[in-house]
Amino acid sequence: MSDQGASPREQMVDWVDRDASVVWHGFTQMSCFAQNAPVIVDRAEGRELIAVDGSRYLDAISSLWVNTLGHRVPELDDALCGQLDRVAHSTLLGNGNRTTIEFAEALARVVPVREPHILFASDGAAAVEQALKIAFQYWTNQGETTRNTFLALGNAYHGDTVGSISLGSGGFGTDVFEPLRFPVLRSPGYDDPAWADRAIELIQSNANVLAAIVIEPLVQGAAGMLVTDPTSVARVARACQQTGLLLIADEVATGFGRTGTLFASEQCGIEPDLLCVGKGITGGYLPLAGTVASQHVYDAFLGPDLSAATFYHGHSYSGNALACAVARAHLEILARGDVLTNVRERAVQLEDALATLVSVHDGVRAVRQCGLMVGVELAPPSSDMRWGRRVCAAAVERGVLLRPLGDVVVLMPILTSTADEIDRIVDTLAAAISEVASQ
Amino acid sequence: MSDQGASPREQMVDWVDRDASVVWHGFTQMSCFAQNAPVIVDRAEGRELIAVDGSRYLDAISSLWVNTLGHRVPELDDALCGQLDRVAHSTLLGNGNRTTIEFAEALARVVPVREPHILFASDGAAAVEQALKIAFQYWTNQGETTRNTFLALGNAYHGDTVGSISLGSGGFGTDVFEPLRFPVLRSPGYDDPAWADRAIELIQSNANVLAAIVIEPLVQGAAGMLVTDPTSVARVARACQQTGLLLIADEVATGFGRTGTLFASEQCGIEPDLLCVGKGITGGYLPLAGTVASQHVYDAFLGPDLSAATFYHGHSYSGNALACAVARAHLEILARGDVLTNVRERAVQLEDALATLVSVHDGVRAVRQCGLMVGVELAPPSSDMRWGRRVCAAAVERGVLLRPLGDVVVLMPILTSTADEIDRIVDTLAAAISEVASQ
Repeated sequence: MSDQGASPREQMVDWVDRDASVVWHGFTQMSCFAQNAPVIVDRAEGRELIAVDGSRYLDAISSLWVNTLGHRVPELDDALCGQLDRVAHSTLLGNGNRTTIEFAEALARVVPVREPHILFASDGAAAVEQALKIAFQYWTNQGETTRNTFLALGNAYHGDTVGSISLGSGGFGTDVFEPLRFPVLRSPGYDDPAWADRAIELIQSNANVLAAIVIEPLVQGAAGMLVTDPTSVARVARACQQTGLLLIADEVATGFGRTGTLFASEQCGIEPDLLCVGKGITGGYLPLAGTVASQHVYDAFLGPDLSAATFYHGHSYSGNALACAVARAHLEILARGDVLTNVRERAVQLEDALATLVSVHDGVRAVRQCGLMVGVELAPPSSDMRWGRRVCAAAVERGVLLRPLGDVVVLMPILTSTADEIDRIVDTLAAAISEVASQ
Repeated sequence: MSDQGASPREQMVDWVDRDASVVWHGFTQMSCFAQNAPVIVDRAEGRELIAVDGSRYLDAISSLWVNTLGHRVPELDDALCGQLDRVAHSTLLGNGNRTTIEFAEALARVVPVREPHILFASDGAAAVEQALKIAFQYWTNQGETTRNTFLALGNAYHGDTVGSISLGSGGFGTDVFEPLRFPVLRSPGYDDPAWADRAIELIQSNANVLAAIVIEPLVQGAAGMLVTDPTSVARVARACQQTGLLLIADEVATGFGRTGTLFASEQCGIEPDLLCVGKGITGGYLPLAGTVASQHVYDAFLGPDLSAATFYHGHSYSGNALACAVARAHLEILARGDVLTNVRERAVQLEDALATLVSVHDGVRAVRQCGLMVGVELAPPSSDMRWGRRVCAAAVERGVLLRPLGDVVVLMPILTSTADEIDRIVDTLAAAISEVASQ
């Protein structure tokens, strides 16, 4: 098990073997794990990950859509160590924690939700589960038992728990779980230019049975970065207001600056009744998620002590103090504005570079972008050629860490990326596509 | 917002107000939050929590069943800071992390699962969701589409996501969500002495439609600490082996020493096909959970790259390096043995003290215990008197933090509790019961 005397290559092979023998990786066919050139991360510096063999990779996927400021950020490290000197965790069930309160207050000031109340969890999927259960009980608490259906979009992905995959549209190998899912109404996703019209029709014709609609504002992320315009989202939100059904905005992926504003909802001018947050909330340091409810939703759960109106739901590590300490420091950094300014500037640069070097490529079908979230849809001669996988492998070989969604290559640069790093990511992607397309 | 000049009492009131305005607490009727004398934790020392007004509370609920070694454990703090110097988090989707591998190897050596493979998550409920989806797909991957039902026990609680509440028996205000739940077969819980006989009958008569049975070995925790004997659990496990259905052991609450052995399954002599772990896994520091699959379960998911056999499921913070660093250090401490020895000794002391001071009380219906997990079922003259709530409030007033499950007072001392602390907990509980019963 010692690395001594082994070549860097041998060390990497050894670690991959050790990994594959005990860790079951999510969304990964483990029989092919080793062949797909996994990077085994030992440490990091800034926006670079350093593998166990000493090789370095520019983190162009934000360590799967969670990292915002880079790795090993002194202010976040300090926040974590400072909280360690107080307490790592105390329960939120019936009791409180000072750091959790302070972070909740800071978050409440910036979320696009009216008079917000925050129910914490750790996995983003759990935040979605909380939102859908709150929306459901919101109606039953008011005696409306027929409004028990959800409207969700085509291509939707909201996580992997049973409630989340019920809202999801069944891609990503989840059709097999159909017998476990509750049924939902489904309108088209952002790949249909008329998605908002169709959603509004369904909202209006089913208002009496719908508890809520669930959307990802501006970007359907895991669907392959399908994008829409703010006006369409705003029109759907208005239809919700007119018919009374709740609007759940899943901003687990889009939240905390990724789209150029703190939340994508801001660009749409909407105020969701329920907002799901996660991923970037701790800058990519620690698991933390939350469901933010507006006052009128929250009010429907008030009643006598121990009464049925109560939301009987809670995770053990809800509002974890260490995660909240990091999240609080992270929000302070974002509040200074320069990170969001950088996102907007780098997004423009990225768009230009992709137009020049990538969109024009014969091997590319489409490039979709919102802020620093990009999907490059490849155009392989046939669908069984694993181009997504191979292009990303070619980029990793060149020191830029990418990971595909099928034949869509996702670019998700860290929010503090420099102009040089953006250029390097696009140059590397273009070279990787050329390499694979010419094979 | 400043504490300066305010009395300790005023400070506490101020923090409770701030808390109630932004944080939605799980399993809590928020209209009564302030009246139920919540403790707002500022910091901790050892097994004591210190509130924002400086008052101190012995943590007799292990910060809701998660803390094992006490708060601010130097070795765990060091492990966290050491990992901070490497990297906080890198993704496990298709890639690996050295610290995660090292923790997974250490965990694999001690779990009662054959040739274990570990899929990480952050919330315990997510670990259960992973187990049920793996069990379901285990059969469909082998072409058996009729084995798509689960057998779960009466009083069962496995978390709050839709899949978890489907396995749950519907207590805790979850009946309202019936339209969202998938149906399961239900056999009696541990309050029925014949539960194992009935479960075995159902296993044998429904083997062709059952994917798995889900149990909490030895203790149904949230049900009010209902306990059973190891032999009954072993008999059920044997029936699973004989009929081929999978055994899912939910040890989120019982794992990591709480029952006197590292896992409750050990006392039963069983080897589950799928084991769910969480809570104590990080000593109570950070959210981390995992689903441990045996080799034969894992093997059913192997196939060509990107094939339908793959388990398409994964959380962003799965295998978080910071949490795994703490969990690794925690497991090293538990491996030394003295903590588990202390659990067994304190459990005997606790049993004796409860028999002398609590079981004999007119206000007590039953005392149930397994290791350092205890449920004291109160016997109020009528069910609407909120005795559970009031007894715990009286204990908190005396400096011992307790929280009830209905009219069951839960004692969950930290695993490193001293003999004096155990005595103090029991003395305080007895005094609290006397106070409430005499009102």
